[in-house]
Amino acid sequence: MGVNSKRVEDFSSHESSTIIKIPTELSSSHQPPFEMIHSVCLPPKKTTTQKLKHKLSEIFFPDDPLYRFKNQQWSRKLVLALQFLFPIFQWGPEYNLKLFRSDIISGLTIASLAIPQGISYAKLANLPPIVGLYSSFVPPLIYSVLGSSRHLAVGPVSIASLVMGSMLGEAVSYTQNPILFLQLAFTATFFAGLFQASLGLLRLGFIIDFLSKATLIGFMAGAAVIVSLQQLKGFLGIVHFTGKMQIIPVLSSVFNHRDEWSWQTVVMGIGFLVFLLTTRHISIKKPKLFWVSAAAPLTSIILSTLLVFCIKSKAHGISVIGHLPKGLNPPSSNMLYFDAPLLMVAIKTGIVTGILSLTEGIAVGRTFASMKNYQVDGNKEMMAIGFMNIIGSCTSCFVTTGSFSRSAVSYNAGAKSAVSNIVMASAVLVTLLFLMPLFYYTPNVILGAIIITAVIGLIDYQSALRLWKVDKLDFLACLCSFFGVLFISVPLGLSIAVGVSVFKILLHVTRPNTLVLGNIPGTHIFQSLNRYREALRVSSFLILSIESPIYFANSTYLQERILRWVREEEEWIKANNGSTLKCIILDMTAVTAIDTSGIDMVRELRKILDKRSLQLVLANPVGSVMEKLHQTKVLEAFGLNGLYLTVGEAVADISSTWKAQA
Amino acid sequence: MGVNSKRVEDFSSHESSTIIKIPTELSSSHQPPFEMIHSVCLPPKKTTTQKLKHKLSEIFFPDDPLYRFKNQQWSRKLVLALQFLFPIFQWGPEYNLKLFRSDIISGLTIASLAIPQGISYAKLANLPPIVGLYSSFVPPLIYSVLGSSRHLAVGPVSIASLVMGSMLGEAVSYTQNPILFLQLAFTATFFAGLFQASLGLLRLGFIIDFLSKATLIGFMAGAAVIVSLQQLKGFLGIVHFTGKMQIIPVLSSVFNHRDEWSWQTVVMGIGFLVFLLTTRHISIKKPKLFWVSAAAPLTSIILSTLLVFCIKSKAHGISVIGHLPKGLNPPSSNMLYFDAPLLMVAIKTGIVTGILSLTEGIAVGRTFASMKNYQVDGNKEMMAIGFMNIIGSCTSCFVTTGSFSRSAVSYNAGAKSAVSNIVMASAVLVTLLFLMPLFYYTPNVILGAIIITAVIGLIDYQSALRLWKVDKLDFLACLCSFFGVLFISVPLGLSIAVGVSVFKILLHVTRPNTLVLGNIPGTHIFQSLNRYREALRVSSFLILSIESPIYFANSTYLQERILRWVREEEEWIKANNGSTLKCIILDMTAVTAIDTSGIDMVRELRKILDKRSLQLVLANPVGSVMEKLHQTKVLEAFGLNGLYLTVGEAVADISSTWKAQA
Repeated sequence: MGVNSKRVEDFSSHESSTIIKIPTELSSSHQPPFEMIHSVCLPPKKTTTQKLKHKLSEIFFPDDPLYRFKNQQWSRKLVLALQFLFPIFQWGPEYNLKLFRSDIISGLTIASLAIPQGISYAKLANLPPIVGLYSSFVPPLIYSVLGSSRHLAVGPVSIASLVMGSMLGEAVSYTQNPILFLQLAFTATFFAGLFQASLGLLRLGFIIDFLSKATLIGFMAGAAVIVSLQQLKGFLGIVHFTGKMQIIPVLSSVFNHRDEWSWQTVVMGIGFLVFLLTTRHISIKKPKLFWVSAAAPLTSIILSTLLVFCIKSKAHGISVIGHLPKGLNPPSSNMLYFDAPLLMVAIKTGIVTGILSLTEGIAVGRTFASMKNYQVDGNKEMMAIGFMNIIGSCTSCFVTTGSFSRSAVSYNAGAKSAVSNIVMASAVLVTLLFLMPLFYYTPNVILGAIIITAVIGLIDYQSALRLWKVDKLDFLACLCSFFGVLFISVPLGLSIAVGVSVFKILLHVTRPNTLVLGNIPGTHIFQSLNRYREALRVSSFLILSIESPIYFANSTYLQERILRWVREEEEWIKANNGSTLKCIILDMTAVTAIDTSGIDMVRELRKILDKRSLQLVLANPVGSVMEKLHQTKVLEAFGLNGLYLTVGEAVADISSTWKAQA
Repeated sequence: MGVNSKRVEDFSSHESSTIIKIPTELSSSHQPPFEMIHSVCLPPKKTTTQKLKHKLSEIFFPDDPLYRFKNQQWSRKLVLALQFLFPIFQWGPEYNLKLFRSDIISGLTIASLAIPQGISYAKLANLPPIVGLYSSFVPPLIYSVLGSSRHLAVGPVSIASLVMGSMLGEAVSYTQNPILFLQLAFTATFFAGLFQASLGLLRLGFIIDFLSKATLIGFMAGAAVIVSLQQLKGFLGIVHFTGKMQIIPVLSSVFNHRDEWSWQTVVMGIGFLVFLLTTRHISIKKPKLFWVSAAAPLTSIILSTLLVFCIKSKAHGISVIGHLPKGLNPPSSNMLYFDAPLLMVAIKTGIVTGILSLTEGIAVGRTFASMKNYQVDGNKEMMAIGFMNIIGSCTSCFVTTGSFSRSAVSYNAGAKSAVSNIVMASAVLVTLLFLMPLFYYTPNVILGAIIITAVIGLIDYQSALRLWKVDKLDFLACLCSFFGVLFISVPLGLSIAVGVSVFKILLHVTRPNTLVLGNIPGTHIFQSLNRYREALRVSSFLILSIESPIYFANSTYLQERILRWVREEEEWIKANNGSTLKCIILDMTAVTAIDTSGIDMVRELRKILDKRSLQLVLANPVGSVMEKLHQTKVLEAFGLNGLYLTVGEAVADISSTWKAQA
């Protein structure tokens, strides 16, 4: 473990909860007295290579993924490697009939949800509906072999579908050039998979961490609004609809084609939407009735299809899905499109949908893993999702990931392992082989109703409200991504929100807190005077705590701010006839890093204070800071009395020196 | 001051440097015992508006610039405001003849440097030489009224001149369209000034802090190399030279025009370059002989002009400056160019040169201010430099700022106030009015030698070496800006370097340090086990210190890393038959901020550890973190024993609870 392994066997034995015992303890000969001054250590010496190795392993292997392989025989290592690469070998041997029963129930439940959603999301991406079913067949099978989450229900999802349709639609029209559009969709899926798998392989998974929760709340709400507005096309039966996604062109398109509105469609749409929303409401109120909302989409499809079939002669205003080809996924590797002009569009779309689907998949996997107390390895999941999409792009699937809504249903239906995905895929298989003609009369408006019901849960205004309460800047990031997505475009909205989040980090570094500390009487604890009323100033000292690394971005600010504290302290002393300020102690506990500008600042500050006959003292610099101060010989300028392990020791030692001099 | 003002009048009186005295002190009745558990306070309540106000004042007014105005009469306030806006009113009344004598000497010294450099830098920016002299006349006068630095010698500088020439040259050719080029230069200067003044006015000065020292070292070295290579044109007498700045086109241009090389020019150039470098070397070795290098450029100009005048009939290979118009700066406000196609180029060039010249000006001002122990207000300096450039752009000046080399000479020559700038401007005035014809025979090659001598000091390989030793990532930023400027372009090289610097901050946040702490026997000090050999583990406890704010960018990492520490600790205990791990203490002292993702992480971590029957305890959360934990009710889940003021109190209290239960 690299740290020393001596230990205090029973800490409480040299502590005491009574007043009387302490003195004896403290003055006993084998323990140094409190006032002994402890020297500040340098961290153990390491070569540049060792440091680099440590740093890289912290960046890329923080979870130490190979720890299981340590001290194992080679045969065992082989088994472990197999289990590592294909988690199915890990849970497979322990799988039994009882688990299988649970998985069958949950698998069939999510299938009844996945089939209508698959068709709907393919429409959302402006792809043929059948592609949505293909995408609910191959990817779940692959995930069940490679994936490590037991509850992830894999298939197309709303956000990634919307983004793919919107980004590709800017380059190619799906009405005028449907084949090229489909080719681009497969190519984008291929690049999404490639990007995801590379992130996992290169262990760069932390890139998705930069989509903060605040950003995602805003983004998902914005996307949900856009998706819902898109459904107005189906709801109103408009034929000539805009290809754009932003709120303004969509709304103007809706109101400029009022002559195309079809009242039959509207009535049917609203009817089923109310039905679906009611079932959703029931399931939210009573989680045990999860099957009510899970079964509702399929029920709606069956009912609406029957309805349209019965009144087909009269209902010419209602557009239907129409003919869907029977049969399994055809290969599509020949449809991947690598020619120059549109390749960049495909790559860009692939990366954006790749990041978004990863974010959703990993977040969902982690949520359910933490509920059942098992671990999901982010980087491995990325590889699983990535391979799933690469293979998917060659078997007529578009981008897929773990869906939040379906995974929640799967979890509630009692899924125990990835077998539930296999069961679901089998149900889709049966549908593909035998049931396709049944969808002929399914009205498009019902797909719109299913999509709206699915995405309405993404508008999480309660979380947004909580952001406002807890962190105003997080709320700003949330708003930026919401309005950015709504009014500008999905990728730009997202980048603005990421920019705001990063800006927040930088702002904290650029303008760090500085606090004046005081002593809590009778202890060696020094705390903020502003926060702890019992804390007292120590006369002749100004004790400042700096709450940030000292970097180029804040060194000027900190120098000015510290000098301002000194000025204000001196003014206060003048006004109150206090004893002269003699020493400034910087509590460096929270200064977790320093760079060359920071070091120059410390050196400079010492010089300035020295000219004013004020002593500058550093307390408790962390390892890396100490190392750099030592390397650059700044410490030499501070002399013997310039560095202490704690503020308490600094105050005690310096006061006693003054006393001795006086 | 907002903090309470009680104070311990003599801290050392309740401390002691002898062993025997402590017990009595600690057990005396008026002081609580060490083992008393202190509760963790919330910071004083503030409304959102108060918080916002505080935050904004820290961001924009960290130096509290108006503190002088507090509690003053209105007449005094008026005087103070006048002094605040025009620092000349501050030092003017105290100015005397003795100071004036010093200023005259230093003013004349820098004039002898400013005249040749002004002509040279104008050539560097591909502008008529006379513009360089104009720019050494008006701006110094304006700065002497508005500026607060006493040592800044104002005029054109090499880097900003180079960048302006290079950026404008990409849009307009200075040989084919010299008038338009000059118009653009004035317009860019106008925007540079506008940008600088707005930064100061909006108090956004911290933007220039993002050009870290490391970035600047690399950038200046790269710029120096480029500038020097550009001088090969004059040195070799090449007529058809590339308009580009990057190293590759310049070198290929040099070797493709070997037939144009003129040996007379080369001999003369090398001779004077050696002379100038020797004088520079002398002044560096003996700072008292600063005047040797200060006087050398003017001497070279006089000597070389005389030489060319004497051999003018034979020296047809040597190109000379030629006719320069006599007279003062003509107004140029009518030359500002606000038409669409090239306006963006002017604005971009203005912003880049504006930032660069600000960075140099402010850094120089601060350097000399700290040597003489006075303050330079960054935001006010920005306004001074900005107005100087705005007015300059209307009086035929291009971008100016405080020059490092000339300010150093001015400082060494004993400048006492901005009057030295007035003296310099007067010397330039005399030159402009009467001495212009004398420059007719000045060879261009001498200007190249002066420029090379001036910029060679910018290649600070020692600082670069120091960066490598102290901070590898800083060195990387330095290299990036060096090679970026050399091979790509000045603005791109700069942005890459800023990107690397920001990435470094983000990396530190994304992968923060976590340390295992141990107790230093006999004290309440807890320090890194890895660093302090005397520190001992406390059995049944795992004490972790987190050295970073907890943000969306690191919450996943931290959760995984903490769980890995727990796993490793449990493995260690298993291997060594230690006593079971029962409690994990997170020392939050260095967690200076937390966002919503971070709060979720803490909540999540507690749940996971709870399922494993491990207690999670937080020690010493800072004010803002405490506030957020409280607001989001995370603390309630922790219960009574979940929060302590110090790690020591946590260990003592929890151990004694266990003892009581046992």
